[in-house]
Amino acid sequence: MKLTEAFQPTLKEVPTEATITSHRLMLRAGLVRQTAAGIYAWLPAGLRVLRAISTIVREEQDRIGAQEVLMPTLQSADLWRRSGRYDAYGPEMLRITDRHERELLYGPTNEEMITDIFGAVVKSYKELPLTLYHLQWKFRDEVRPRFGVMRGREFYMKDGYSFDVSKEGAERNYWRQMLAYLRTFRRIGVNAVPMQADTGPIGGNLSHEFLVLAPAGESGVFYDAAWEGIDWSKRDLDADSAEDLKAVQDVLATHYAATDEKHDEAAWEKVPAEQRREGRGIEVGQIFHLGPKYTEAMGVTVTGEDGSPTHPDMGCYGIGVSRLVGAIIEASHDDNGIIWPESVAPWRFALINLRPGDEATDALCARLYSADPENILYDDRKERAGVKFNDADLLGLPWQVIIGPRGAKAGQVELKNRASGERSEMPVDDFMARFGLKAS
Amino acid sequence: MKLTEAFQPTLKEVPTEATITSHRLMLRAGLVRQTAAGIYAWLPAGLRVLRAISTIVREEQDRIGAQEVLMPTLQSADLWRRSGRYDAYGPEMLRITDRHERELLYGPTNEEMITDIFGAVVKSYKELPLTLYHLQWKFRDEVRPRFGVMRGREFYMKDGYSFDVSKEGAERNYWRQMLAYLRTFRRIGVNAVPMQADTGPIGGNLSHEFLVLAPAGESGVFYDAAWEGIDWSKRDLDADSAEDLKAVQDVLATHYAATDEKHDEAAWEKVPAEQRREGRGIEVGQIFHLGPKYTEAMGVTVTGEDGSPTHPDMGCYGIGVSRLVGAIIEASHDDNGIIWPESVAPWRFALINLRPGDEATDALCARLYSADPENILYDDRKERAGVKFNDADLLGLPWQVIIGPRGAKAGQVELKNRASGERSEMPVDDFMARFGLKAS
Repeated sequence: MKLTEAFQPTLKEVPTEATITSHRLMLRAGLVRQTAAGIYAWLPAGLRVLRAISTIVREEQDRIGAQEVLMPTLQSADLWRRSGRYDAYGPEMLRITDRHERELLYGPTNEEMITDIFGAVVKSYKELPLTLYHLQWKFRDEVRPRFGVMRGREFYMKDGYSFDVSKEGAERNYWRQMLAYLRTFRRIGVNAVPMQADTGPIGGNLSHEFLVLAPAGESGVFYDAAWEGIDWSKRDLDADSAEDLKAVQDVLATHYAATDEKHDEAAWEKVPAEQRREGRGIEVGQIFHLGPKYTEAMGVTVTGEDGSPTHPDMGCYGIGVSRLVGAIIEASHDDNGIIWPESVAPWRFALINLRPGDEATDALCARLYSADPENILYDDRKERAGVKFNDADLLGLPWQVIIGPRGAKAGQVELKNRASGERSEMPVDDFMARFGLKAS
Repeated sequence: MKLTEAFQPTLKEVPTEATITSHRLMLRAGLVRQTAAGIYAWLPAGLRVLRAISTIVREEQDRIGAQEVLMPTLQSADLWRRSGRYDAYGPEMLRITDRHERELLYGPTNEEMITDIFGAVVKSYKELPLTLYHLQWKFRDEVRPRFGVMRGREFYMKDGYSFDVSKEGAERNYWRQMLAYLRTFRRIGVNAVPMQADTGPIGGNLSHEFLVLAPAGESGVFYDAAWEGIDWSKRDLDADSAEDLKAVQDVLATHYAATDEKHDEAAWEKVPAEQRREGRGIEVGQIFHLGPKYTEAMGVTVTGEDGSPTHPDMGCYGIGVSRLVGAIIEASHDDNGIIWPESVAPWRFALINLRPGDEATDALCARLYSADPENILYDDRKERAGVKFNDADLLGLPWQVIIGPRGAKAGQVELKNRASGERSEMPVDDFMARFGLKAS
């Protein structure tokens, strides 16, 4: 994308409503715009991040055999009356009346709907286990929406639901999701540590939430630094292997991690002092073993192995996809702007032309740009170098490729790594080879 | 995907609420399930079609330089008061009140919101032309939702908006979209003919709607059969070339096409009798030149070439993505079920194992399946051959690959083309080579 053509507005002034770093940076870098309290439009760069995260989430769900569906945003109140949650749910539920005076609601979650769909389709234990998930917009009518997309009202979430005939089966599904989540967050580039959690109004008795260490977090967290060293995306673990799932459980049992609500001072004392990490954490996902709470309440059964009707045992698994965009920034930025992990950056390269109009500079930039226009944001504006460097740091693409008349003449590229700040110069061909780019 | 593991429920009974073919087939083939009046959940096979269509729509928009954003589903009533449409819009608008008694609405379209975002960001004619689009769920509170996803209440739509300083520029954007639309529909596999249309409450003075010939259509249509022969996806036309856009306009001027509202008997008489196509049409898209209607109403200006503030001239461009799923089926089915165009089929191949449990048959099926599991729906169920053939015809994947003990022994594959019904036998290696499959 060429910046002179891109809808990529950067703001110089910090909007006053933004009180936390990620909110300020998302508005300044042109990722989102607020359209109503707690409701945001995603501009091209922000949407690219949202989509990159969604793709990783999908790939890791598909990998463990979960199947994607897409449920609507609006649900009938009657569905929620069947589980007893319609009246129990507080003012966070956005209740709607249609032209025929039928009661609808904007779904804050989908346990009722998925249980209803499941019950209409699945008849026998032979069809289990089954895990269905979707990515869809949801709404929670927060009394004070704030922190940008971190605590918005309309938000994008992946929620998945597993069904099995036994508690043992349900727990197996739970640990499969644990593995998928550990892989997902690692690939997204955040260190999200699983910590035991209360189950709250969703119900159930086994739950973990995944927290990213960042000062803006809503919970206090304590964890063993060993969590930072594990690259789950590289471990060769098979979600279908009982042994491998046990290995995952063992890691959780071995390395301490807890929110302040569940913090255990005695266990914490056993973590070597230099290994202790303490701070605030942002919740970016939560998984629950639900048991048969919803299938019982809604009267959903399948034929069990012994031929008698049985209420399937469920799990539910959420990832806050739009919230993650904010959480990544909270965990990865500096005074100059965002520092995107490579896997979710809106573009991989910022190509900075220091002298638009200079023939050699333009020619080299055009040559580089044409090698991979889909992954390059090309700053071809007639602006001062300082403005371009500032905007590039603000938007935080992983690599800045800087071309000026001197370099262009010598066939040299200056490369800056946004995260480390490291700069190097190299011949154009070396640069192309290093990143697997080919002249078009 | 293996059918024994897939959430792919086929219904034997036709639901009574379904009165048109596409609705019946979508329910029977397990593409969607109704969750409330006019609101549907998309099951895995249906979602795959929805996504395939969305991808083609995006590619053709990106190709002409339109940029993707993502606006929220809920909008503030105040935004619509600025254009004067809040009170003018009828009971199809779903009006919502939040916990603070603020008025919201579920967006049926986005002219106001995109104009507001544009106005906040773009300041000068130098930043134009600009076209932004998004794919998002919308809501229209139809008094009698029916025909399944063809006339649902919550529906998925691509809507795009162009901005330019002059009427000439706006018209150029209009014809660029005309070309993108012709390419899009052709790639999706439907013959959608552009016909002059009234602009209705959206406003403006130049508009075409795109209609697919099918008996369930809401409008009468008349067109020259020449329209069926043009493969826009193969024509080498450049949206940046005035000459090429002129060529598109010439095709529209040359080949007659009109809905009954705009039908001109005198012009129709000039179409050779054997070239006349007459029937019903389903609207799957519409494009409008809007003029400055919304920028004027909402007080949005940019600095013009002469330095004075000017109201940009807009166009808007819609494609009914969820509706298209129904329209494709209306235009492409037979008594046995759906016939998907290859480009949007949920899977490319139905692999039918005629004798699960037979060693050679299972082995050959496993070998074929592993060559491309992402594009194969493998019927590994222990069902009679008749059931499998019926279900394969119903779901309508383009190719059926049929393996029985006799063929497995001889290393032969039976191939059936769903559209033509043509059957052929060939050695396994020839089959693999024909479709570019490689043993894994």
